Amino acid sequence: MKAIQYGLGPVGCAVFRLGIERGLRYVGAVDRDPGKIGRDLGLVAGLGEPLGVAVAGEAGKVLAQNQGVVVTHATGSSLRQVAGQLVDLLKAGCTVVSTCEELSYPYLRYPEEAALLDETAKKYGGRLLGTGVNPGFIMDFLPLALTAAAQKVTALRVERVVDAARRREPLQRKVGVGLSKEEYLRGVEEGRIRHVGLPESAAMLAAGMGWKLERFAEEIEPVVADRPLRGANGTVEPGFVAGTRQVFRGFVNGPEPKIILELKMAVGEEEVDRIFIAGHPPLTFQVCGGVPGDVATASVLINSLAGLLELPPGLHTMLDLNRARFRPFSCRQS
Amino acid sequence: MKAIQYGLGPVGCAVFRLGIERGLRYVGAVDRDPGKIGRDLGLVAGLGEPLGVAVAGEAGKVLAQNQGVVVTHATGSSLRQVAGQLVDLLKAGCTVVSTCEELSYPYLRYPEEAALLDETAKKYGGRLLGTGVNPGFIMDFLPLALTAAAQKVTALRVERVVDAARRREPLQRKVGVGLSKEEYLRGVEEGRIRHVGLPESAAMLAAGMGWKLERFAEEIEPVVADRPLRGANGTVEPGFVAGTRQVFRGFVNGPEPKIILELKMAVGEEEVDRIFIAGHPPLTFQVCGGVPGDVATASVLINSLAGLLELPPGLHTMLDLNRARFRPFSCRQS
Repeated sequence: MKAIQYGLGPVGCAVFRLGIERGLRYVGAVDRDPGKIGRDLGLVAGLGEPLGVAVAGEAGKVLAQNQGVVVTHATGSSLRQVAGQLVDLLKAGCTVVSTCEELSYPYLRYPEEAALLDETAKKYGGRLLGTGVNPGFIMDFLPLALTAAAQKVTALRVERVVDAARRREPLQRKVGVGLSKEEYLRGVEEGRIRHVGLPESAAMLAAGMGWKLERFAEEIEPVVADRPLRGANGTVEPGFVAGTRQVFRGFVNGPEPKIILELKMAVGEEEVDRIFIAGHPPLTFQVCGGVPGDVATASVLINSLAGLLELPPGLHTMLDLNRARFRPFSCRQS
Repeated sequence: MKAIQYGLGPVGCAVFRLGIERGLRYVGAVDRDPGKIGRDLGLVAGLGEPLGVAVAGEAGKVLAQNQGVVVTHATGSSLRQVAGQLVDLLKAGCTVVSTCEELSYPYLRYPEEAALLDETAKKYGGRLLGTGVNPGFIMDFLPLALTAAAQKVTALRVERVVDAARRREPLQRKVGVGLSKEEYLRGVEEGRIRHVGLPESAAMLAAGMGWKLERFAEEIEPVVADRPLRGANGTVEPGFVAGTRQVFRGFVNGPEPKIILELKMAVGEEEVDRIFIAGHPPLTFQVCGGVPGDVATASVLINSLAGLLELPPGLHTMLDLNRARFRPFSCRQS
């Protein structure tokens, strides 16, 4: 199966290497980094040997020669920033799996972009799915799969704790490791410190459950070191920021949130994922040691591809890939 | 959505009550028990009020008047024993969800029955799915859903521990609670003591992973009380049987099993489900307190129905309902 890698950052390279391992035949790659353009894809992406494919700076020519292929896409979190790239890929009839967090369930916050992408995909026979470990798996797909065991669901809560010390330096920067509280708050205000995806996961959960999100709130606050902690750029002293804690609360009816998503990413934390389904029966699920982010993001992308190829052209979400979950009969696929 | 309840034992009644709650409109019921025939379905099935539908002793007339409806079916574990019932339902174009354990993945042990059911379903526009909590969820559907986070899977192991004291008396009898070791072994030999479904779950896992089961072995042994334990029919004295431990090992290549399914059902056990995915990354999941059997069997049946209705006519398995999982590209849906 022919494929193109779009985006050669750390996650894109990991996705590419797994794709190779699973038998995808990469015939092209795109990255805007001048330091990568023109070099061999295999060498740039850490395959350890050349692949005989040069990295291109733009998609145009690669797509013209490779209509309708698979594209593994990893260029950014912001749907508005990557929508143009996605439209080009869909116009070439490609089947695209993307790490773009806001694409994972775009109907809540980007309904117009979602409609455009869906129309384009249908018109040109393309398919599009945004996924990864979070959003895409631990806070949406997996809780929904677990609701298959529930007769009644009154609320959903997911807690993910990530030890930032075990993650890449860019992630540590994204969660504010080592900053003073003031610098952290400025970073939040300027949008530099933020995990993207909680509203998307929550919207997917709500759609899966047949709930209408009436309102929601997202909070972000620093996790402050209470002892010296080791970060990627040196020790975090007590009183400085060890990371971030982000909580999403979604309200459906009444004053109590029906969806709570809590993400803590800080150095020195014990990694774990927990999923709580309130209802009948109540269910408590735990991933001991947590699902490791980067490795699993590549997994979910590549593992979703075969399922995506079986679906009709269009914009899809992880909801469409799993049909066994709590489902009111009145609630059709998105 | 019109429905028929087929089988009014404890599980069938639980499925029916959940179906009612979710908006199924039951227009008929079938049970062979003379003590139930002719009585009102709502009263027989514990709804607390009459439904205006009489229980029939045979399906013929009910089906003649209700072609193509949904059927929630719970009459037995043995596919050979219920295949005739299922063929009748499929000939009436019905969409059938069944608790029949051997139907959950019949291709390994009952390929002929599976082919007949699939052909009949396709010919008459019917749909058929065998599911429940085990088989159907904890040892097959859920582990496969979890493999979506794995880059590589080298082995799968599931452990389910059920406290038989919290289950119905028939289940306690089925696992040998209170017997002497000799009586237990006789019960195993005569096929009275046995949980049905481990080979079916394993075959579904293997098919999902693209593994070919070369050989398998299933062991069953008594769990012996080491202290007085309270069972449904009185105290189990030390030295007597508290329950059963059943282990399935499936071999794909090499001397080490790639699939291990371990089920312990005994009085006095702490309930838990554990799923281990060996590979990259290794993943360990736990359902704290376990998924309660009877409640969740009804859940999985009713929750799978909307997804089954979206699939084309034919015999389906839980594999077909979830498309996001570890998938070699060469491995198509069953």
